Amino acid sequence: MKDVISYRPIGVLRSPHTRAEDTPIQPVYAEGCEGRVEVFPEFADGLCDLEAFSHVYLFCHLHLATEPRLTVKPFLQDVERGVFATRAPCRPNPIGLSIVRLLRREGNVLYVTDVDMLNGTPVLDIKPYTARFDRIDTTRNGWQDDVDEQTARQRGQRGWKGSTGHEEHA
Amino acid sequence: MKDVISYRPIGVLRSPHTRAEDTPIQPVYAEGCEGRVEVFPEFADGLCDLEAFSHVYLFCHLHLATEPRLTVKPFLQDVERGVFATRAPCRPNPIGLSIVRLLRREGNVLYVTDVDMLNGTPVLDIKPYTARFDRIDTTRNGWQDDVDEQTARQRGQRGWKGSTGHEEHA
Repeated sequence: MKDVISYRPIGVLRSPHTRAEDTPIQPVYAEGCEGRVEVFPEFADGLCDLEAFSHVYLFCHLHLATEPRLTVKPFLQDVERGVFATRAPCRPNPIGLSIVRLLRREGNVLYVTDVDMLNGTPVLDIKPYTARFDRIDTTRNGWQDDVDEQTARQRGQRGWKGSTGHEEHA
Repeated sequence: MKDVISYRPIGVLRSPHTRAEDTPIQPVYAEGCEGRVEVFPEFADGLCDLEAFSHVYLFCHLHLATEPRLTVKPFLQDVERGVFATRAPCRPNPIGLSIVRLLRREGNVLYVTDVDMLNGTPVLDIKPYTARFDRIDTTRNGWQDDVDEQTARQRGQRGWKGSTGHEEHA
């Protein structure tokens, strides 16, 4: 069970984010920030029909994540938490999950917005976000319930101050 | 960019599902089906605070997935689709994503329900499902919008006929 599992990137993310410390922590705090997924041509046929979904999951390898830690202060709160109770990148397996809006597809390239990942991040998988599977009525959101929305937005955007005129793409 | 990325399981999923063909395709079609995540003891400290969330993401390595295909007929519809527009397991990198309900934690073991994965599936990562990040108002769900809920449920449950008396755990 502890054997190594090997994956290969299916593509790479292009984004305006070049400094980790200025990169929003989640797509909800990167509204209107455009980027693209350049899927390697040999996987292009796997993208058919994806353009009919408004939102997609990007599974990325967080290639610049710092060494894994089992406890960490999340970006939104100054309290040490178990890393699996956070979305922090410094995880034993640094897999990032982002739900981005899909603007359009051109061949092997997905144009997306609300991008919260660094330029050059390797992409491992893409799945459609489906309301019937993924839109969940939670009853408890743990420590997140203690963080008010204004604080979350302010800390979640980090150095990114929002785009201008992104409405034309929304 | 095409370098190999290596992960190691952080634990293993225990579930009543032992035959792929009888295993529900998503947690929404496995309501009340209980299982547990046995996290390896060396990662147990990373689980702190997770028990305060009602739902968690399990990232699994779909170890019994068949060879990757770029187009596939999804479980819910008899139409060939690009694999990245489906949740089918036969993906270039067979990462499975399940949103399960967390019943409780006992040390390094998570007791969960709505389990849609095979017994023995390696677990790569666990993240909290957070309403403010993950509960998205989609506008288009692609081919999924053409599948009525009754058909989806019938096909999505596959051989699994539902549990009895699961209300006591809900």
